[in-house]
Amino acid sequence: MVRTILAVMFCLAFISVVEAQAQSLNLMPLPAKVQMGSGQLVVDPNFSVSIAGHHEARLDRAVELFLVQLRRQTGMPPIDMKVTDSATATLVVQAAAGTKAVQELGEDESYRLEISSSGARLTAPTTLGVMRGLQTFLQLERTTSAGFAVPAVTIEDSPRFPWRGLMIDVGRHFIPLDVLKRNLDGMAAVKLNVLHWHLSENQGFRIESKKFPKLQEMGSDGLYYTQDQVRELIAYARERGIRVVPEFDMPGHATAWFVGYPELASGPGPYQIERQWGVFDPAMDPTREETYKFLDTFIGEMAGLFPDQFFHIGGDEVNGKEWDANPKIQAFMHAHGMKDNNDLQAYFNQRVEKIVAKNGKTMLGWDEILRPDLPKTIVIQSWRGPDSLAQAAKLGYRGLLSSGYYVDLMWPAERHYATEPLSGAAANLTPEEQKRILGGEACMWSEYVSPESIDSRIWPRTAAIAERLWSPQDVRDVNSMYQRLAVTSTWLDGLGLTHNSSYTPMLRRIAGTNDVAALKVLADVLEPVKDYTREETAPVPATSLLPLNRVVDAVRPESATARQFAAAVDELVGGNAKPGSEPRVRELLSRWRDNQVELQPQFEKSLLLQEVAPLSQNLSALGAAGLAALDYLDRGEPAPAAWVTAQLALVEQASKAQAQLLIMVAPAVGKLIRASAGPASPASSPAE
Amino acid sequence: MVRTILAVMFCLAFISVVEAQAQSLNLMPLPAKVQMGSGQLVVDPNFSVSIAGHHEARLDRAVELFLVQLRRQTGMPPIDMKVTDSATATLVVQAAAGTKAVQELGEDESYRLEISSSGARLTAPTTLGVMRGLQTFLQLERTTSAGFAVPAVTIEDSPRFPWRGLMIDVGRHFIPLDVLKRNLDGMAAVKLNVLHWHLSENQGFRIESKKFPKLQEMGSDGLYYTQDQVRELIAYARERGIRVVPEFDMPGHATAWFVGYPELASGPGPYQIERQWGVFDPAMDPTREETYKFLDTFIGEMAGLFPDQFFHIGGDEVNGKEWDANPKIQAFMHAHGMKDNNDLQAYFNQRVEKIVAKNGKTMLGWDEILRPDLPKTIVIQSWRGPDSLAQAAKLGYRGLLSSGYYVDLMWPAERHYATEPLSGAAANLTPEEQKRILGGEACMWSEYVSPESIDSRIWPRTAAIAERLWSPQDVRDVNSMYQRLAVTSTWLDGLGLTHNSSYTPMLRRIAGTNDVAALKVLADVLEPVKDYTREETAPVPATSLLPLNRVVDAVRPESATARQFAAAVDELVGGNAKPGSEPRVRELLSRWRDNQVELQPQFEKSLLLQEVAPLSQNLSALGAAGLAALDYLDRGEPAPAAWVTAQLALVEQASKAQAQLLIMVAPAVGKLIRASAGPASPASSPAE
Repeated sequence: MVRTILAVMFCLAFISVVEAQAQSLNLMPLPAKVQMGSGQLVVDPNFSVSIAGHHEARLDRAVELFLVQLRRQTGMPPIDMKVTDSATATLVVQAAAGTKAVQELGEDESYRLEISSSGARLTAPTTLGVMRGLQTFLQLERTTSAGFAVPAVTIEDSPRFPWRGLMIDVGRHFIPLDVLKRNLDGMAAVKLNVLHWHLSENQGFRIESKKFPKLQEMGSDGLYYTQDQVRELIAYARERGIRVVPEFDMPGHATAWFVGYPELASGPGPYQIERQWGVFDPAMDPTREETYKFLDTFIGEMAGLFPDQFFHIGGDEVNGKEWDANPKIQAFMHAHGMKDNNDLQAYFNQRVEKIVAKNGKTMLGWDEILRPDLPKTIVIQSWRGPDSLAQAAKLGYRGLLSSGYYVDLMWPAERHYATEPLSGAAANLTPEEQKRILGGEACMWSEYVSPESIDSRIWPRTAAIAERLWSPQDVRDVNSMYQRLAVTSTWLDGLGLTHNSSYTPMLRRIAGTNDVAALKVLADVLEPVKDYTREETAPVPATSLLPLNRVVDAVRPESATARQFAAAVDELVGGNAKPGSEPRVRELLSRWRDNQVELQPQFEKSLLLQEVAPLSQNLSALGAAGLAALDYLDRGEPAPAAWVTAQLALVEQASKAQAQLLIMVAPAVGKLIRASAGPASPASSPAE
Repeated sequence: MVRTILAVMFCLAFISVVEAQAQSLNLMPLPAKVQMGSGQLVVDPNFSVSIAGHHEARLDRAVELFLVQLRRQTGMPPIDMKVTDSATATLVVQAAAGTKAVQELGEDESYRLEISSSGARLTAPTTLGVMRGLQTFLQLERTTSAGFAVPAVTIEDSPRFPWRGLMIDVGRHFIPLDVLKRNLDGMAAVKLNVLHWHLSENQGFRIESKKFPKLQEMGSDGLYYTQDQVRELIAYARERGIRVVPEFDMPGHATAWFVGYPELASGPGPYQIERQWGVFDPAMDPTREETYKFLDTFIGEMAGLFPDQFFHIGGDEVNGKEWDANPKIQAFMHAHGMKDNNDLQAYFNQRVEKIVAKNGKTMLGWDEILRPDLPKTIVIQSWRGPDSLAQAAKLGYRGLLSSGYYVDLMWPAERHYATEPLSGAAANLTPEEQKRILGGEACMWSEYVSPESIDSRIWPRTAAIAERLWSPQDVRDVNSMYQRLAVTSTWLDGLGLTHNSSYTPMLRRIAGTNDVAALKVLADVLEPVKDYTREETAPVPATSLLPLNRVVDAVRPESATARQFAAAVDELVGGNAKPGSEPRVRELLSRWRDNQVELQPQFEKSLLLQEVAPLSQNLSALGAAGLAALDYLDRGEPAPAAWVTAQLALVEQASKAQAQLLIMVAPAVGKLIRASAGPASPASSPAE
């Protein structure tokens, strides 16, 4: 018995060492299986790749893109690092078979990567698997004492879910093609495989229709993609193993359609492009045959443009007011025995589904479209949560999770990371039902993003979502995730993503000077308000005309400084501080305390900076309070109750949003203050 | 008399205040005339531009590009800031006339920009002047307490020289189209007007020829521009008021031509693309009629592709060895009474000039082509200097200065800035002769640049050259230049140039970690060796196959830290230190002293970092020595002679290049040490 226990313990210890080694590779998403070898394979200008086995243009291109990136990462010239026919190539790539002409849901993406000090071999059932394995190889590349190298390792890997997407809303703010392309590069790097392109909204219709040109001409402010550009993006995505699923939201979220074609709508019109955010009244008229005739032509045109099997019709958030106000629609509903607007929308969905199906496509829509009268082929995308998803799966529908993956809500990465598609009611589904849960999508709704800021809202947090959807379910160590996310974030910089590089220029513009050291001290601990608070607390209604050039647009969704500070404070308060933790906490607190004096002179020089003056004052006060609390703790002398009460009031005040920003270190400073009160203090009562 | 003196003094004082105000606008190049007004014009989302006067598509496009950039600088959405027909537009733009179908040398670029608190007016004789004025407007935009604004000001401006160029050598290292485009943006921003595209070299033939496809197929490693891309770049340049002058270097510097067409050469062949740097033997055979037949067809093809009036034939650095070794060529020379290879090359140039002229173009070449037997229409580009240029002007030839503007030589901006086309013998030319000096060109020879590093070798120093060529001759305050150059450098970042943004990623790659704070302390005071020392001191012969990923490739050509440190030391030693200078000097010295301890652990982890270990040790020693010297100075106690001698030996040793890098703070530390010796010390003897 003792032996068995020892053996088990040894095993566990061994596993955790191996796991630690695997984690130290800084791969993201973490592969299914990693077996460390010994030594490393040097990556120098003579590095070469040969392609064994099946050949296709897409594979050649994947290898070419791989070499471009490997050269970029190592600073090698383009005339080095060649594709060769030689069997002694540094890396031999072998795909057993090619890929489908149109990438399909569930195509095999698995791969096996073996690296020893003498060479590397990447084998996969398909070119798609090779693409994923090449990304792993790129992530493994590092600087060493022998030059650039990849460690000896054997990796067997395959995705947990077949649908791992990123939705980008280009309707509310137009996002230019080059921005989408660099985001496709980021997606490929973390093994996401679906770009869900939300192409129409109340605020803009973003794609050229040759059949109905007034859609883009009158509905887009001139900000739309030509069909050539669409084809270009689809080809770009395909080279990276990414499917492109278009979404045309209907019957609601469609005001921009009605500017050029008011007859589609249920109200009298005329319509204008919507400039504000929210849910609006305009909706298509589901009772007129002309509506379906229009959609038949339009969907036919778009089905020809987008090769993917899936076609997203949106279907969310119809408030029904235009339907209620239209006597003809009311009469129609009465005549057809429809008891409410849900029935009417269900009728609409059925009609649209037939059009989509006629064009050889599978319909996809948000939660609201789920009604048992639709065929079981359709896919439900859930913004409501895993329970809603489970309900769909039980009814026999396939589904995608997006609730919990809305990156516009400014949540920390760990909250997205903890969002598990097979949780809640979905955890109790039968294996058969669970298979219907195809995966999920990070969603970038664009009320508050511009081409300048969008990358910083998507990355690096979306990499954590990508890991949730790719890696085994038991991969969920938050510390490991954050450590690898930091490395991944810098790596993504190298792909041209601007999530890090846009920060300083935005702060410089706000401050009107290159000297933004003091502003950075403040901005580094700020985060935008969460969920929908920005909209709810806007001093004037936000519109698409307002510049997104404020401090709230520049600061990161998640403050690494605040997270690290909170961890150090937890150690201190828990009595298990590592060496260096207290000096680090003191240093930060002092810097915050003194920062207001540094920043003060800049406020009067910039209108955009002025709104954060109160935050700077609060941060300064938090710094002073935290230092005083630390002094009490160091002296082992409980802080006076009155002082504690006053300081906690300060913390509470400083925790409130100002200028739609939050000081993320306030709670940890509060912890320090409560700890300084000693164990018996009322300020640390359980009611707190 | 006294009154007159006072009046003059008042005038001078007044001028200098005005000049200081004008300089505080941070414009670069500094305009010819600036008259400050009072107040400012707010730049908000309602900002609008109307086009009065002459209309042409190029003007519309210039305004469109201006608005794109203004929105980018201010963070405004693309649906704000419109072109309007209204006479009450914020900015009214008026060009008296359009521009030539092909931009000509000497086309009027002058403009007048009047800004008051109620509006702005930009008038110019041509669209070109409008383009220059719009760039001035963009440079004036700043963050203020009222939001974004431009100051009230009246500017009258025109260029001093009509030819203000940047040569980019894409032969030795291929530079992709997107990199050239962002450099065109940078050129337009500082009012340069000629891209001189050095398209062929021993190491590569970089353009598609449909007549002679083996030129690019065998001479480029696949790295060349298609003719469509060339047209695209020319159109891009034209939209920015920039001419594109192609250079095809002949009869030397042409090995890459001979790989596909060995019959063009004077040697027996076969030829391969040259991988090393230097002057090589292969040269075209000037004695065969087939050579001229080939060039006639080739130049005809290229003359059709490049609309510019000028066609550069290179003509430099023919060592003549292939000619000497070829009996047929020797016989030809003898038969034609040619006494040396110069005569042979002159014959070649005459023949080529006729071909160029037949195609309606004006020939341009380097110094070597200058022979009185060529027509006076040709233009000489001088890499030898103003005297050579003056000689050409006296002979009736037009000329361009490039000597002194070679940005690959890693000189400080002030040295380029001090290079005056009308200096030396050129200063004594008659006005008529001086007019023949058309301007100059910054030259980016590309032995040691990659797409990653090229921007940092061109910018920001080329902006100082641009000012020399645009602004009045008496604009030469070096401090003002450096102050404005720093602002301009950051502004150029916003155009997508990577001269600043590539620094940290390159250091991170070298160090193999994101923690490059210590490496930056070192790298910030290093510069690459100057002139041709890198080539001369290369441990192995450098080739185009070698990666440019070393510390010498990452560090900046000019260390701002070293310049500022030297200035502070000069103040200290001169006894006129500003408050804060000594603490700043002490802080830097301490940081350098302590930095080695920080950096040491990183050396063993990176091969690329190891070569700078001796530099780090030397910097540390310099820091310690400087601090000790400062202590002696502060105590007013002369340092012991033996100590001074030992420290100066250290400085001398630390001043030597290592890893092809220089520690730029060594001389100033030497000054501190000598000063600490006291006035009578032998260490500060005049012999020093």
